[in-house]
Amino acid sequence: GSAAHATALETIVRDAVRTTPVWDLHTHLYPVAFGTPNAGAGAPTDPKGLLLWGVDELLTYHYLVAEVFRVVPSRVLPYQDFWRMSKEAQADHIWRHLFLERSPISEACRGVLTTLQALGLDPDERDLGRYRRWFAAQNPDDHIDRVMELGGVNRITMTNAVFDDNERLRWLENPNVGADSRFEGVLRFDPLVRDWPAAAAKLTRWGYAASETLDDASIANARRFLNDWIDRVKAIYCAVSLPPSFRYDSPDDGSYSSRVLADIVLPVLAERDLPFAMMIGSQLQVNPALGDAGDMVGPADVFSVTRLANDFPQNRFLCTMLARENQHALAVAARKFGNLLVFGCWWFLNNPSLVEEITRMRVELLGLSFVPQHSDARVLEQLIYKWRHSRELIADVLVDKYNDAAAAGWRATESEVRRDVALLFEKNFASFVEAPAT
Amino acid sequence: GSAAHATALETIVRDAVRTTPVWDLHTHLYPVAFGTPNAGAGAPTDPKGLLLWGVDELLTYHYLVAEVFRVVPSRVLPYQDFWRMSKEAQADHIWRHLFLERSPISEACRGVLTTLQALGLDPDERDLGRYRRWFAAQNPDDHIDRVMELGGVNRITMTNAVFDDNERLRWLENPNVGADSRFEGVLRFDPLVRDWPAAAAKLTRWGYAASETLDDASIANARRFLNDWIDRVKAIYCAVSLPPSFRYDSPDDGSYSSRVLADIVLPVLAERDLPFAMMIGSQLQVNPALGDAGDMVGPADVFSVTRLANDFPQNRFLCTMLARENQHALAVAARKFGNLLVFGCWWFLNNPSLVEEITRMRVELLGLSFVPQHSDARVLEQLIYKWRHSRELIADVLVDKYNDAAAAGWRATESEVRRDVALLFEKNFASFVEAPAT
Amino acid sequence: GSAAHATALETIVRDAVRTTPVWDLHTHLYPVAFGTPNAGAGAPTDPKGLLLWGVDELLTYHYLVAEVFRVVPSRVLPYQDFWRMSKEAQADHIWRHLFLERSPISEACRGVLTTLQALGLDPDERDLGRYRRWFAAQNPDDHIDRVMELGGVNRITMTNAVFDDNERLRWLENPNVGADSRFEGVLRFDPLVRDWPAAAAKLTRWGYAASETLDDASIANARRFLNDWIDRVKAIYCAVSLPPSFRYDSPDDGSYSSRVLADIVLPVLAERDLPFAMMIGSQLQVNPALGDAGDMVGPADVFSVTRLANDFPQNRFLCTMLARENQHALAVAARKFGNLLVFGCWWFLNNPSLVEEITRMRVELLGLSFVPQHSDARVLEQLIYKWRHSRELIADVLVDKYNDAAAAGWRATESEVRRDVALLFEKNFASFVEAPAT
Ligand SMILES: [Mg+2]
Ligand SMILES: [Zn+2]
Ligand SMILES: [Zn+2]
Ligand SMILES: [Zn+2]
Repeated sequence: GSAAHATALETIVRDAVRTTPVWDLHTHLYPVAFGTPNAGAGAPTDPKGLLLWGVDELLTYHYLVAEVFRVVPSRVLPYQDFWRMSKEAQADHIWRHLFLERSPISEACRGVLTTLQALGLDPDERDLGRYRRWFAAQNPDDHIDRVMELGGVNRITMTNAVFDDNERLRWLENPNVGADSRFEGVLRFDPLVRDWPAAAAKLTRWGYAASETLDDASIANARRFLNDWIDRVKAIYCAVSLPPSFRYDSPDDGSYSSRVLADIVLPVLAERDLPFAMMIGSQLQVNPALGDAGDMVGPADVFSVTRLANDFPQNRFLCTMLARENQHALAVAARKFGNLLVFGCWWFLNNPSLVEEITRMRVELLGLSFVPQHSDARVLEQLIYKWRHSRELIADVLVDKYNDAAAAGWRATESEVRRDVALLFEKNFASFVEAPAT
Repeated sequence: GSAAHATALETIVRDAVRTTPVWDLHTHLYPVAFGTPNAGAGAPTDPKGLLLWGVDELLTYHYLVAEVFRVVPSRVLPYQDFWRMSKEAQADHIWRHLFLERSPISEACRGVLTTLQALGLDPDERDLGRYRRWFAAQNPDDHIDRVMELGGVNRITMTNAVFDDNERLRWLENPNVGADSRFEGVLRFDPLVRDWPAAAAKLTRWGYAASETLDDASIANARRFLNDWIDRVKAIYCAVSLPPSFRYDSPDDGSYSSRVLADIVLPVLAERDLPFAMMIGSQLQVNPALGDAGDMVGPADVFSVTRLANDFPQNRFLCTMLARENQHALAVAARKFGNLLVFGCWWFLNNPSLVEEITRMRVELLGLSFVPQHSDARVLEQLIYKWRHSRELIADVLVDKYNDAAAAGWRATESEVRRDVALLFEKNFASFVEAPAT
Repeated sequence: GSAAHATALETIVRDAVRTTPVWDLHTHLYPVAFGTPNAGAGAPTDPKGLLLWGVDELLTYHYLVAEVFRVVPSRVLPYQDFWRMSKEAQADHIWRHLFLERSPISEACRGVLTTLQALGLDPDERDLGRYRRWFAAQNPDDHIDRVMELGGVNRITMTNAVFDDNERLRWLENPNVGADSRFEGVLRFDPLVRDWPAAAAKLTRWGYAASETLDDASIANARRFLNDWIDRVKAIYCAVSLPPSFRYDSPDDGSYSSRVLADIVLPVLAERDLPFAMMIGSQLQVNPALGDAGDMVGPADVFSVTRLANDFPQNRFLCTMLARENQHALAVAARKFGNLLVFGCWWFLNNPSLVEEITRMRVELLGLSFVPQHSDARVLEQLIYKWRHSRELIADVLVDKYNDAAAAGWRATESEVRRDVALLFEKNFASFVEAPAT
């Protein structure tokens, strides 16, 4: 009967979602070769290392720093006092106030619980010392495998910020630093688009002479800079984060950002046949005292994205926006442009009620032609909770949608469901980054 | 007991919603007299005919054209190649890519399934040839009856675009072209409000001399034009679609649109005692290559609507907006003005998750004093799915609301529920269009 | 097993939410000493008295006035005719049209049902006469106790509008008018921030000489005015309602409101160690004929709030916004500032679907560090329904969140759940208003 069919279908969908590996298209994770401040069992300690992992990193994630300053505000514990504490002392503080003195039911707190549990630890022991001992015994490189397995992730995409000195020098010192088959490179260059004069000064210092005026030589050198670094990080796409105020009207609307896009970034990417990712809507440092936790959300202009997609049909655009109020229009924008791939539920949107509403809306408007989620993980083990929580919500939506189709007489087979989930989790993105030149 | 009561109440509500006929207040459907490109069994073929029906029209609906260009983008199949294909080849292309190569779970795809199933075809046969043969055997005029029966629609409201040559000439050639008791006329004249200079030039050509300056003679002639056409199409209301940028500050805010509204449109409608419908928020042609599928959504200004409702108390306004982000304020606006009737979940909002949230919000804010849905059908058989899907969601909301009232001790009787549903589906609109002069 | 655990947990959570008393942080309710137009059994009648209660006040609440003008619009019953009717006749009109001629399923109508039922009356009798007789037999002062008991409210916060003559004179005539241990005072002074020139004229008349120019003497006198009135009403915080257009860029952005905040309001509140509450987003009188029911919602600027929280770290801010589209960003703003406490679902947001989505989003983003609701009650018995309805929705959210934590291995005990609910319902606010000086 129909109820039995619905149960069977639900089992198929949930299983497909649980077992289909994901290509995580945006993280801030790195292979061990980039160093790690947390030696564990097997790596040398590198205080400025880029691979963050372990329970103290999980607990001092900037999402939780923001939350603890709500319950122990700066008038009680001044910001500078917190920042002067050791990472372990910060973690103790957060554990005490966000887990023990009130229940850890925010999404960021819940994420820590899910992660510990998946790793075989018992969150209900509430014993930070025990967790620390367990992590200290891990070899970071093996641990990456284990975390990817538990998160159901088969490929991790890095964010390789070329304007970050710490990261840039590692690439220059060791051309093979990124050579880990589990990781893919992405060239990220926010200053180029957000602040051309400052970027030009740096390019000049780095041997790519560029002037504020964006003359032909500057353009040629900046293109060479991009090409060199695309090669160096073996970038599968390039990316920037843009503020809510970002506007693109036309290549000659008079703004630096439009000229940089039209004359430097997009021509290089068209030639290299690589997508350009835009993450739009983060207002930097509304509370500078909070550091990484001090950025805010603001509404962006979706029409700027549709104009870019229209004006540069030879380019492919990945796009996510941070404001909830942009999500409907952004999904509609994707209906208008085959060269625009919408992805993920970013940062302040990566909460169950919002992931669910956004995913549902996208399936209704776009069918299977989008990428439902990315992890944005900064701490390795976050892969586990971000994907477990997201999978649950994506499955909820898909179960409803396959049931609706079945009620209308269309019965998807198991292999069709698996094919569809693979599109969402891997193949849509894979074909977008690997697509042949236009 | 209370559970038994809740079950009984749910049965009553669902039955009332399923069986109460709707007056569909906005469609793009026409009687057979307007011609049809699809002869079927019984009508002459008219390639430019306005009545669209049949499985190939369903599959090439612009919602699905937009979706197929996401999965076979223009870099693979150029727009112009698609547009050059026959309608049948376009339908084959869409069927293959959106139904067979991935599951048809977007709302527009699901709509095709629901429609086929309701007509007695088996979507799971996945056999386009068989469906085509069935449609080819239908007589269009009888088919209209059958579709209305299956959709639970007892009256269809047309959109009679007087600035569309194809349609205008049909009215001029045959004064009785609209004489079908199943259909009501609506005069639609977007250019008049959106682009007065262009409209004035056309009015002049049509014998209603009008100049850019909007002088007294222009106003008088434009009013005469409206009156003549209201008579010709026997319009039950007049309508325009407006861009997100539409603003009304005051009759003399300096814009053409405000003057046209204040001096031409609203006085005529007040005199004729007809409502004025505004559909606000569609940004035309962000991707011109997609044709009808190339329009976008943008946020509109709800205060412009409240100012109109306040400044013209002798007029009645129907209003729907396209942006999700306008829905809450628009429902609140309706709380402020008895001469403002909010209706429908338009286009990109006509998706289950959005219909559900909007309908729920409207019931909570407005009780039963709104019109929950219109079909916007462009292809006859879409009436079936648009109303079946909407009825399910409207029933979900109402079941909750009657249960809440019952939990608070107020038990609606079956006849009260039927009375209420009739308000939502027919009577609110009927009394709004038929209301006596102020 | 896990299902049994979930059931037990749900029981614990629902019981904690049902039985934990709330401190209602924003109402328009008053002790009997402020007079009441409804004598009942035991109070003298005061036609301009501020304590509103009884079934006729419940039915003529401005939410229901707005709704009845949708179904009996002003073209049928002119506004002035309605306003000339006696309160009882207005109530009869609303009862007939919103309860009897269509089912009372809007949230405002449902609220009346819940209230009557909780008071032991039977809404299904539908007999207004009987309800009136019951209310007429109540002694208002005892009735306050009963209503607070039924609403689960243990402290009511007033709104003491010092620019309202009726209220101001009552404080001047009787310094003990506010001396009722169930009520707390809040100084409200919208004109000071919204219209300094008008406020300055009034201050001058009241003995606090102030000029348009905001010179030093004006500032000193305005501060003295605030201090005097904070003392007089024993204010636990101060408050203003601000329009959607409110902007704060910096203390010297050139606007009166920024200067008044920076030079008068915030220094006084910092010195007195009292929070400042901003309710932002109400657009006054889009339909003046509707009176109190004629205000609208508009989107506000969340960045103005983050700038205030950043520029005045020695101040504490309470904030709620009226537009649904501001809720996500406002919750994110609270993540950035420990001196910003987000509260409630205001007015047009106080509807089940919106309370649920806002509360869920806030828990996900802020954990337990916010105040989920306030009643905004203007009629005493509204406390009952506003808190009953809200408690149900808050419990729904919390049940899900504790279950999610439990699924991740963290099992909250009953005393932990009660501790958490007390934070939401009372202690977050209590510690925010009682916090020691910075
Ligand atoms: Mg929702
Ligand atoms: Zn990121
Ligand atoms: Zn339409
Ligand atoms: Zn209030």
